[in-house]
Formats: sequence, C-alpha cells, structure tokens
Amino acid sequence: MEKIVFDQKLAVLRDEIDVIDCQLVELLKKRRTVTTKVGELKSEVGMPIYAPEREEALLIKRRKQAQDVGLNPDVIEDVLRRLMSDSYLSQDASGYLCVNPSCKKVVVIGGKGQLGRIFVDLFTRSNYRVEVIEQEDWPNSKNILSDASVVIVAVPIRLTSSIIQKLNDLPEQCILADVTSIKESPLYEMLKVHKGPVVGLHPMFGPDITSLVKQTVIACEGRDPESYQWLLEQIKIWGAKIYTVDAVAHDQAMAMVQVMRHFSTIAYGYHLMTEGADIAQLVEMSSPIYRLELIMVGRLFAQNPVLYSDIIFSNSDNIDMMKRFAYRFLELLEDVETGDKESFINMFNQVSDWFGDYAGDFLKESKSMLLKANELKK
Amino acid sequence: MEKIVFDQKLAVLRDEIDVIDCQLVELLKKRRTVTTKVGELKSEVGMPIYAPEREEALLIKRRKQAQDVGLNPDVIEDVLRRLMSDSYLSQDASGYLCVNPSCKKVVVIGGKGQLGRIFVDLFTRSNYRVEVIEQEDWPNSKNILSDASVVIVAVPIRLTSSIIQKLNDLPEQCILADVTSIKESPLYEMLKVHKGPVVGLHPMFGPDITSLVKQTVIACEGRDPESYQWLLEQIKIWGAKIYTVDAVAHDQAMAMVQVMRHFSTIAYGYHLMTEGADIAQLVEMSSPIYRLELIMVGRLFAQNPVLYSDIIFSNSDNIDMMKRFAYRFLELLEDVETGDKESFINMFNQVSDWFGDYAGDFLKESKSMLLKANELKK
Repeated sequence: MEKIVFDQKLAVLRDEIDVIDCQLVELLKKRRTVTTKVGELKSEVGMPIYAPEREEALLIKRRKQAQDVGLNPDVIEDVLRRLMSDSYLSQDASGYLCVNPSCKKVVVIGGKGQLGRIFVDLFTRSNYRVEVIEQEDWPNSKNILSDASVVIVAVPIRLTSSIIQKLNDLPEQCILADVTSIKESPLYEMLKVHKGPVVGLHPMFGPDITSLVKQTVIACEGRDPESYQWLLEQIKIWGAKIYTVDAVAHDQAMAMVQVMRHFSTIAYGYHLMTEGADIAQLVEMSSPIYRLELIMVGRLFAQNPVLYSDIIFSNSDNIDMMKRFAYRFLELLEDVETGDKESFINMFNQVSDWFGDYAGDFLKESKSMLLKANELKK
Repeated sequence: MEKIVFDQKLAVLRDEIDVIDCQLVELLKKRRTVTTKVGELKSEVGMPIYAPEREEALLIKRRKQAQDVGLNPDVIEDVLRRLMSDSYLSQDASGYLCVNPSCKKVVVIGGKGQLGRIFVDLFTRSNYRVEVIEQEDWPNSKNILSDASVVIVAVPIRLTSSIIQKLNDLPEQCILADVTSIKESPLYEMLKVHKGPVVGLHPMFGPDITSLVKQTVIACEGRDPESYQWLLEQIKIWGAKIYTVDAVAHDQAMAMVQVMRHFSTIAYGYHLMTEGADIAQLVEMSSPIYRLELIMVGRLFAQNPVLYSDIIFSNSDNIDMMKRFAYRFLELLEDVETGDKESFINMFNQVSDWFGDYAGDFLKESKSMLLKANELKK
C-alpha cells in the first residue's frame, strides 16, 4: 500500500474514533446529570448514596449486554465502576440529611487541618452548626465548648494527648471523639478527662479523598454507645462503612499494616538509595508489577516525613513487632543461603493456606491494578 | 416525601441511567469495530499498534471537551485509557507484519510453557514458521534445529543452563536467545556454546498479559547485534519497548526490584501469619492503600512457589544484598528505639531527594491506583 493511501485511510478511521469519543463525552455528561438528580433525591430523605445491590445489578446487566455484542465484559465493568465512583461525587455535592437536628453544635479541634476540614465540610453540608478550634482560638475555647454537643479532636498525633487533657470541662452530655490513627491511648485519655459519651474513630483514608463513599471508619467504643450512635449513623449517611473493633485489637492490626508497611517501605527506599540504584533506569526496566511497587514506595517520599515519623514513633510496642519481622526476614534468608528450597516452599504453602480464599481474590483484583499501572505509563 | 413517591422517582431516574448505560455499551461496540479496522490497516503495512502521540492528542481533545461541559477530565481520561488498552487487543487479533520474511524457522524451546507460548503465538501471527521443542521432542531435536534461523530458550530458570548446553550444534547464522529473568549467566552459557549471534532477553511481564503493547522487553547484547536487530524490530512491531542494558547492570537492578521485593513480600506474608493476624479483619479495616498492599502480598501466595523460589535462589549475590536490607531495616529501627526522630526525618529527606521528581509523579499516579483499589471493594 502506498504511504499516501495508508495515511488517508488511517485519517478516516481516526476521525470516526474522534466522533465516537465526542459522543462518549456527551453521553457521560447526560449520565452525570441524572446521577446528580439521584443524589438530590436521596439527600432529601437521607438515603445513603452508595447502594451496593443496585451497583451489582447494574454491572451484571451491562456485562451481559457486552458479552452479547462481543465485547469484553471486564472493560464495561471497569468503565462503569469509574463512572459510579465519579457519580458519588456529584451526588455528594447536594448535601446530606442531618440525622440529629437537636445537636446544638459540633466543634472540630484542628478543623483547618487536612483531616479536620473534611469533617467540618461534611457536618456543614449536613446542616449542623460547626465551629473550629485552632491554636489561636484556645483563649476563647471555654466559650466555644460550653454548648457543644460533639467535640472531635483532629490534631496531629503528637498533640492528641495534650489537647485532650484540656477538655476537662465539657458539657456532660457532649460526645467526645478523636480521629487519631492509634486508639488505645487517646481513648484512655478521653475517658479520664470526660464523664460523658466517648468514642475513638479512625478514618481509614488520606486527606485527598473527595468522598466518603466506600471508605471505612473504624469505631472503638469508649463510653455510652447509645448516646453517640447517631454520630455513627451520620457517618454512614456520608457513605462510609463503620467497622467496630476493640481499641487494643485496632492498635495491633494497625501496627501490622500501617506502621510496619510505612516503616518497611521507608527502609526499602533507603536501601535503594544506599545501594546506589539508578532510579531512572529502574523505572525504565520495570514490569507493571515493579512499577506499581515503585509507585507505592516513591509516593511516600513525596509526603511529609513528620506525618510518618509521628505514626512510627507513636508506640514502642511497634519496635518489637518490627524487630520480629527483621529476624523472620533473616531466618528465611538462611533457607536461601543453605539452598533449602524445600523448607522455603513449605513455608510459602503455609502462608498461602493462611491467606485462604483471599490469595486468589487478590490475584484477580491485582490484574486490574496492574492493567491500570501499565495504562499510566507514559 | 412519602416512601412510595420516593421509590417511584428513584425508579424513573434509575431507568434513565439504564438507558444511558445501554447506549454506552453500544457506543463502545462501535468504537471497537473501528479500532479493529485500524489494527487491520496497520498490520498490513507493519506500523506499530501503539501510537503514543496519537494517544496523547486524543486525550487532550477529550479532556478539553469534558472540561467545557463541566465534567471531571480525569474521569474521561481514565475511561479512554481503559478503552485504548482494550482496543490494542482487537488491533492485535489481526496479525502482524513479518519484518524478516527470509527467516526460515523460529524454534521455541519450552514453547508450550506459560511464557513460551506467548512468543509462539506472536511469531505465528506474524507469519513465521514456528516449531516447539518440549522435553519429549529432544530425541528429534537435531532435526528440528538443523534449519533454525532463531532459537529461543523459554524454559524454567533452573533448567536454562542445562538446556543451553545442549545447543552446541546450531547453524552458524542462527540467532540464539533466552528469556530468563537473569541475564549474566545464560548469556555466558549461550556465548560459550554457540558461535553465531546471541542476545539475552528479559520480557518484563507475566504470563497473563494479553498484548505486548506498552510492555517492556530488556535486551542484553551477546554477539553480533546487527544480525539480530530484526528480531528486536519484530518485538517492537508487537508493541513492546526494547530497553538495552548491560547484563551485569540488569542482574543488579533485578536483584533490587524483582528478587528483593518478592522475598520481602513473602517475608511479610510469613510475618503476618506468624504474628497470628486475622486476615479477614485486616481486610475489613483496610484503607485503600493498605488494601492495595494486601492485594500485592496476597496475590503472590496464589501463585506457584517454585517459580518464586527459583528466582530467589538463582543468584547468591542476592543474599548479601538482602542481608544489607535487613541490617538497614534494623539500623533505622534503632532511631525509633532511641526516639531519634531528627535522624529519621533526615534520612527520609535524603531518600526523598534521591527519588527526585519521581516521588511527586508517583504520588500523582498512586492516586488513580488507590481510586481503582477502592472501586474494587465489594
């Protein structure tokens, strides 16, 4: 085929794609308009935005249709999931039902911070009266706190304890809550300083989320759960799932996932640097899976070290647990040193059993993650 | 609002969404039909399927349109990237240009294995004559190899060396290549056994990929690169990027990313099990980021331990490097033990500098990965 003929033919087809893509944007716009209406309707009656069964039913229908016309159903599912996660935002914009109109005032201490302002925004959009206490407001705090129905401590972890100690004069029926990523010690402090309802919360998301839909908030019981039940209901209205767990179990689990992973990721970055690795070359040479791993390591170093060191240094129990990890690492390395593949494989199979069905589920999920990692390649 | 009125209104809106989604599937079908034609046209003239500039231009246009109608441009970009990565598959189906029609025969040793069969399929669809040697074919191998123009060794890493040693009687002009994940020792073996062109390849993808588009294949020079240049061109026609690097540098980089990460992920799984963690609870309590990390750990344990132990046990240099990691881990832990936050933050900032611009880029990319991880939540 002559080059000019080829170029012409290609141009015609590309124009056709452009026309289709243009229609696609218009269709997505139409969809967004309708989902916004759904959000408005739901917020009028206080129905949660996220409706798992509807999501599931919708996906099944479209997967079937895709299959019938010879398309890969996974593609349509991925596209629809992306649209749905976006539509939650539009449904969000319209405000939320206020589950406790008799609540006089919500005070968020640290309400201008990254996490605090998310809660200020959500309470405000649910028609609560909200006030914020920042450092400069302490002289006036007695006044601000005197008629509070809820006080939420949303300050950096290293300040949590000293801030809680200042809250010894709250109205007796006031709910006292914190949103620190550890739970045992703040709960202890809160119970000591306040005689009313107390609950420890750990929102399992970073400050850059745009909606609480499908996010998890962990709740650890302090005192008088009946009195703060409405607060948890309110969080559910915002789209989050509440997971209730004992504070000690919470801290242990977080040590294993949060602290341990942060620390080990930081150590890996330090290791790469100290080994004299060439980061540009590593990126160039990466498979989707190593690229994803590098993304997860590198992202951490774009953030505030104080945030991470506060979490890592917060609990000395963590040190022992992480030492145990390092020793296990060296223990397994001995198998490699002595060439004992059998023992290594045996260990591998045990862990595999321990993961159970999650291993297979995760393998399946990882495939779409890796596809995504490769799509992001420039 | 009465429940019945609300239900009716919601049903009407949901029906509207269903109609839109149905049109969406139809539009995607139309798009797929056109992209298939693009693939056929390109394969006629041997033009690579993946056209980065066209991709970029297309995205810019649609982002702009999205913005103009008040949609989030990131959503349309994510959707289009998903469609494009799917469209490469349809463009793939139609076969590829054969860049070296004078090639008499390609022999893939281990061509029925997971990785081998990908190459068998690609060569076949590019109109090469392809033959496979599996264990049972060795008695007849002299015959099969006598008129080979290319021999590719695609056997498990632990067999690579012994298989290469059998290839001492190839036609002199035959290209000998392997696809093992280490490069120094197979290259050495290949150069010793064969006097003609030699190249070491490391395809940076797993066996479950459906297309080579945007994937990376690492090439390490063995002997007479001019003679095997066409082979690399053929791989590019399939959509992959060739990254050429020295075998020693390759093995060092892989030790740091592949071996080290596999090992440390396995050690982390072992650690979780030994700590007596409750996996179901960990999953329930996970933020998107810990969920993503658990996915990446768990996925590994759904796979064949022999595969991983072969890679980890393949090179004893790896042991020293991994020991250095464990010692650095313990060294950093000392900072935590002595409460030396300053030293910890200082180290953090150094690594951050070492990552340079990649840290910020990765943070940005990680956001869409985390969004994806949360979309996958059931």
